[in-house]
Amino acid sequence: MAVPALEVLSEKRCFGGVQGFYRYESSACGGPMRFGVFRPERSGRVPALLFLAGLTCTEETFAIKAGAQRVAAELGLALVTPDTSPRETGIEGATGDWEFGEGAGFWLDATQAPYAGRFGMESVVVRELPMLLDAHFGIDVARLGISGHSMGGHGALTLALRHPQRFRSLSAFAPIVAPMQVPWGQKAFPRYLGNDETAWRGHDATALMADGHGFDGPILIDQGADDAFLAEQLRPELFQAACDAANQPLLLRQHAGYDHSYWFIQSFIEDHLRHHARVLSP
Amino acid sequence: MAVPALEVLSEKRCFGGVQGFYRYESSACGGPMRFGVFRPERSGRVPALLFLAGLTCTEETFAIKAGAQRVAAELGLALVTPDTSPRETGIEGATGDWEFGEGAGFWLDATQAPYAGRFGMESVVVRELPMLLDAHFGIDVARLGISGHSMGGHGALTLALRHPQRFRSLSAFAPIVAPMQVPWGQKAFPRYLGNDETAWRGHDATALMADGHGFDGPILIDQGADDAFLAEQLRPELFQAACDAANQPLLLRQHAGYDHSYWFIQSFIEDHLRHHARVLSP
Repeated sequence: MAVPALEVLSEKRCFGGVQGFYRYESSACGGPMRFGVFRPERSGRVPALLFLAGLTCTEETFAIKAGAQRVAAELGLALVTPDTSPRETGIEGATGDWEFGEGAGFWLDATQAPYAGRFGMESVVVRELPMLLDAHFGIDVARLGISGHSMGGHGALTLALRHPQRFRSLSAFAPIVAPMQVPWGQKAFPRYLGNDETAWRGHDATALMADGHGFDGPILIDQGADDAFLAEQLRPELFQAACDAANQPLLLRQHAGYDHSYWFIQSFIEDHLRHHARVLSP
Repeated sequence: MAVPALEVLSEKRCFGGVQGFYRYESSACGGPMRFGVFRPERSGRVPALLFLAGLTCTEETFAIKAGAQRVAAELGLALVTPDTSPRETGIEGATGDWEFGEGAGFWLDATQAPYAGRFGMESVVVRELPMLLDAHFGIDVARLGISGHSMGGHGALTLALRHPQRFRSLSAFAPIVAPMQVPWGQKAFPRYLGNDETAWRGHDATALMADGHGFDGPILIDQGADDAFLAEQLRPELFQAACDAANQPLLLRQHAGYDHSYWFIQSFIEDHLRHHARVLSP
């Protein structure tokens, strides 16, 4: 498969490297897809951390709000931030609801009309972006880590468990760990994946862990104890139990006083970057 | 004068402290004024750095984009970010132009109708905010530093030179150092201050320095060498010459490849915070 052409939207000097935003024609989404890359100033190929954002967010959110470039520059780690869905799809029902559709791609390839062939964020992350990162950014795609926030934490966990050869390090902030059991997932999964819940299990981190899909390495999860979505939508204790049952190493940290925002993420992002760098560039 | 009442818009835990946004009724602006405060987790009174933002920016811009809270928490330094003007003034001519009016208060007290009594950002910074910081935030207002970006760099330089008892440390990013000599100032000053250029000199950092208003301490200025506004609007060499003539210590650093954005600011904010902390909490 040919590497897609790259359109540069902007490139700015930052911490000695370059923070850029880009667009390409995604086969998986049948249209344009945007993403950001922070490339540290290093000679040779560098490893990269992919960070998947949450509901309503874009390729800019983590890049602007997380304050991650400083440590990434120090560690020689690239940061890659895809948009959370295709945009301006023209699909009826794909806009106007912050929990579903545009801005809420749930990091899977939809199988149901009219979303199949248009909402293909799993293929964007595991297939299309690595081709672009290898060809255009000098990134060593044999050294990719993945992390994310909320819906993006769900994405990081499920994609790492589904594609153990693709990602070598894994973490998440306030992830949706059991979408089948919470309202956000119960709303999105039928529309993207249909009503057969056996298909949902392949995109539920807790179910994947229970079904034998472990991760070869420790998983780091940070959770704000004052997160308004904690009890109803996030429920990290469900994933903790599944990891315990599977003997999967998991470090789940609860932080008193912190909520679901990027004020929380920026407070702990350095620990995540170092967690990934220990594996990606030891 | 009574301390204005404080309305809390939001407060979030960040790096162990609290990032909040607030509103009060400003006498100087005849209406509501917004500002942000990052208060580090420290017992007792803490010093504060006021950061004045540039054209089009708000009280959120620096707080979200500069990545300053981490080092401020380490240093025990509060960060205070006023909005750049009153909003929704209803004044004809005060909206629709990004270089003048709302979002472009130029950190002075207007003397000309219809702006007099409504655009009073100098009084907000030097009189109203210190009362609020002292009364509501546990900030030691005898230990205030000031910095800013672009129009806010102009504000930091001119307010520190005009009020040497108020601010004990001073820095700027890509400041407008000679507004009388550049288009941005030549557009705003007549409308806010009238056509008598002698009034303008009191709000022009280069003229203030030439007129004997020095600062008791070193001034740090960072400037991106690839800043699109450098040659026409910023012209740091004019301030450098005035400082040299007045024997004012100035460290003006030019950074190859950096532009006018917060990608630039975040890359060097740590140096500025440490510059201020050396004076404010030695």
